[in-house]
Amino acid sequence: MKKIGVALFGMGTVGTGVARLLLESADHLAARSGFRFELRHVVVRDLELRRGLTLPPGIMTRDPERVFDDDAVHIGIEVMGGIEHAATTIRRLIDSGKEIVTANKALLCDQGPELVDYAWSRGRSIAFEAAAAGGIPIVSALRRSLTGNVVHRIEGILNGTSNFILSRMTEEDCSYGEALLQAQAMGYAEADPTFDVDGTDAAQKLAILVLLAFGARVPLESIHRKGIDSLERADLAYAADLGYTIKLLADATLVNEALQLSVRPTLIPLGRPLAAVGGALNAVLVEGDPVGPLCFTGAGAGSGPTASAIVADVIETAIGSIRLGPPPLIDRKDLAPLISSPDDEVRRYYLRFKVDDRPHAFADIAHVLGNHGISLASIVQKEVRGINAPVPVIVVTHETSLKALRAAESELDGLDTIHPPLVRIPIVD
Amino acid sequence: MKKIGVALFGMGTVGTGVARLLLESADHLAARSGFRFELRHVVVRDLELRRGLTLPPGIMTRDPERVFDDDAVHIGIEVMGGIEHAATTIRRLIDSGKEIVTANKALLCDQGPELVDYAWSRGRSIAFEAAAAGGIPIVSALRRSLTGNVVHRIEGILNGTSNFILSRMTEEDCSYGEALLQAQAMGYAEADPTFDVDGTDAAQKLAILVLLAFGARVPLESIHRKGIDSLERADLAYAADLGYTIKLLADATLVNEALQLSVRPTLIPLGRPLAAVGGALNAVLVEGDPVGPLCFTGAGAGSGPTASAIVADVIETAIGSIRLGPPPLIDRKDLAPLISSPDDEVRRYYLRFKVDDRPHAFADIAHVLGNHGISLASIVQKEVRGINAPVPVIVVTHETSLKALRAAESELDGLDTIHPPLVRIPIVD
Repeated sequence: MKKIGVALFGMGTVGTGVARLLLESADHLAARSGFRFELRHVVVRDLELRRGLTLPPGIMTRDPERVFDDDAVHIGIEVMGGIEHAATTIRRLIDSGKEIVTANKALLCDQGPELVDYAWSRGRSIAFEAAAAGGIPIVSALRRSLTGNVVHRIEGILNGTSNFILSRMTEEDCSYGEALLQAQAMGYAEADPTFDVDGTDAAQKLAILVLLAFGARVPLESIHRKGIDSLERADLAYAADLGYTIKLLADATLVNEALQLSVRPTLIPLGRPLAAVGGALNAVLVEGDPVGPLCFTGAGAGSGPTASAIVADVIETAIGSIRLGPPPLIDRKDLAPLISSPDDEVRRYYLRFKVDDRPHAFADIAHVLGNHGISLASIVQKEVRGINAPVPVIVVTHETSLKALRAAESELDGLDTIHPPLVRIPIVD
Repeated sequence: MKKIGVALFGMGTVGTGVARLLLESADHLAARSGFRFELRHVVVRDLELRRGLTLPPGIMTRDPERVFDDDAVHIGIEVMGGIEHAATTIRRLIDSGKEIVTANKALLCDQGPELVDYAWSRGRSIAFEAAAAGGIPIVSALRRSLTGNVVHRIEGILNGTSNFILSRMTEEDCSYGEALLQAQAMGYAEADPTFDVDGTDAAQKLAILVLLAFGARVPLESIHRKGIDSLERADLAYAADLGYTIKLLADATLVNEALQLSVRPTLIPLGRPLAAVGGALNAVLVEGDPVGPLCFTGAGAGSGPTASAIVADVIETAIGSIRLGPPPLIDRKDLAPLISSPDDEVRRYYLRFKVDDRPHAFADIAHVLGNHGISLASIVQKEVRGINAPVPVIVVTHETSLKALRAAESELDGLDTIHPPLVRIPIVD
C-alpha cells in the first residue's frame, strides 16, 4: 500500500480534529482509500499549548522548513487561518512540490484565483472542501456534480454561530445579547464574534460558492451585507405570527442575467426547507437548470465535520482527482454574469413602524407607501398596554424596488406620527 | 478542444432529457468541462415513437452494432432500464472499449459488483450517479466526500411517486386510491405503479447506497419491505395529531455492529428534516462519524434532474476521475457489517386497534402489552358516532423488540373485545 506523507499547519480546534482522524482512523482510511496516510509534521506557533490529543513523539514543531525540506511529505494541510502568513506558507509548500488542502475561507475569498493559478501552473493542486460549509460537501457538488447545470440561485445559511443565536432568540424569546452569551458558553461563538454576527464570514463563503457556480469573482464589498446584532426579539416573534422565520441568509440570485448578492437577516416562509434549519447547522440551497432545487444541510463548522471535509480532500488529492478538469475558483470573465446594484433589487419586505395610536396613523403609512407604488400584502397593529404609548405597526409589502422603498421611508420620516426605529427586513419567497 | 463521442441507449423520458441537455447546452458544457461532447448515436427499439425532441439526422438507429463498431464513441449511456438486455449491452460496450454511464438501479442492485469488476478489469469505468436518488449527488458524496467517515445510518425518501401519494393523502385527506389517480394524472406514477408503491424501487436504491457506504452487498430479500398501498388515511391523520408524519422510509442503521435494513411506512416526528420533504421530492440523510448528520434533498426522478446526474457522470468520465480510487460497489467482505434479523430490531411503534367501547377494553390492551414488557408512551381513544360501533384506539409504545410485539399481538388477537385490523407502524426518532 502506498504511503502518503502529510504535514499539518495549525493545531487549533480544526487541526486537532484532522490529526485525530488521521491517527485514530488510519486503518479505516487505508481500507477505504487504498493509501496509508502518515502524519509526519504538525507545525504550530506554541509548542506548550495543550490540545487534548497526544501526537507521536517528535512530529510537533515550530519550524515550517522541516516540512518544505521533507521529500516524504506529499500534502500540506493549512488550517492556521489568517491571510498573509497562510498565503506565504501555501506558496512555499507548492514551491517545494507539495499538494495543498486548506479550510481558509478568508484567504480563498481574498486570493483564491491567484493561489489556484500558482498551484496549477506548477503541476500542483489546492483542495478546499472545508472552506465553504464545513462538513457539507457543497464544493464538490458545485465543481463536479452540477457541472451540467446553469445555476440560477444559491441561498445559504453559512454561519452556524448566527444561526444558533437566531434559533435561541426565536425558541426562548430572549434578546440578542442573552443568546450570544449562551452561544459563547456552549462554544459556538468566539470571545470576539464580530465576523460571525456581522455577516463577514458568511459573505466570504458566499464569494467562494459564487466563484464555483457562476465563475464570477465578487469583491466582498459588492455583497450587500447586514449583521444580526441589531435584530430585536420582537421582530422574530412578529415574523413567526405572520408565518415566517428570520435567518441570516446568504443569497446569490441571477435576475435579468445579473447577480444579486446579499448576506442579511431575511424572512423565510416557515414551509421552506431553509426555515427548518435550526441550531448551529448550515444549509445550502442550489437551484439549477435542469436539476431544480437541491438542498444540503449539515454541520458547517466544528472539529469533526471540518475534519471530515479536509480528510476527504486529502484522499482525493492522493488519488489525483483534484487535479483533473478545469481548475476551480477561476475568474471566468467570458462566462460570469454582471453584479447588479442593490437598488435594482425587487423584493417583498417586512417593515415595522412605531406610530402614535391615533385614527389616521395607519392610513398615513398606507398612503405614503401607495404614493411610491408600494402595495401592502398585510398590515398588523399590535396592542400595547399604557395610554398614549406608540404602538408597533407591522407591514408586509408586495414586491417593490429598494429605491422606491427608500424614497417612501424618507417621506415617512417626515411624519410626526411615526417614530424611529423603522425596521426593514427583506422576504424571500 | 477535445471531442468526446457519446452514444445513448434508450430514449424514454430520461434519455430525451439527456439528449436535450447534450445538444442544447453543448456550448455551456464545453465552457465548463473543457470537452466538446458529440452525440453520435441514439439506439432505440422503435424509430417511429415521437419524443418531443428533434435529433440531428441519421443518429437514431435500432442497431447497437453501429455503436460497438464506432471508434469515435468514447462513452455509452445506458438508460433503457430492465436487467438482462441492459447487462448484455453494457458488457458489449466495455468489450468495444467504451466507458459506461448508467441510471439503471435494478441492474446495479442485481449485478453491480460483477459489472464494475468487468469494467475495471478491462481498464474501463462505470458511473451511476443517477441510479440512487436522481438529481441528488449522493453517490458522489458517499464515494468521494465522506470516505473519511464511519457511516452509522442512511435514511432516505427514495421513491418520489410514493412520497407524492403520501403527501396528497395527508394534505387533502384523501384515500390511497384517489391520491394514486392524481399521481398518474400528473405523470408522477406509471400506469402500473407496483414497484414504486410496494417499496421495490426504494429498496433497490437503498441496496446501492448500502454497498457504497458500508461495503455490504445486501440481497433485496434481506431488506424488510412494506408498501404504502395498505395505508389508511385515518392513520395519517392520527399520526399528525400525535406530531408525526408517515413516509415510505428506506433505512439502513448500524446497531451493535449489524445492519438493520428496511423500506416501509414509518412515523417521523414533524421537526425532523425528512418529515418536511413533500411532494415528489427525494431526500437522503447520512449520519457519519465525525461529520454528524447530513441531509440532501432534491428531485429524485424526472427527465431534467436525472439528466443533470447523467451528464455530470459523462463529464467526470471524460476527465478521468471515475476511474480513480478503489472501484465502487465492491462487496467488501473484509469490512462489511453483518445483516441483522428484523426480529432483533428495537423500536417504538404506532399501533391502532378497533375495540368494543366497553369499560375494560382499554385496560385489556395495556395489560397484554405490559405482560410482554411493552410500556406505553401514549394511548388515545377516538370518539365515534353510533352506538356499539367499535372505536379506534391508538397506542404509541416505548421501545420494544418486534419479537415481543408479535407475541403480544397474537395474544391480543385472542381477545373478543378487539377486532382486526391491527395497524402497526414503526417510529423513527
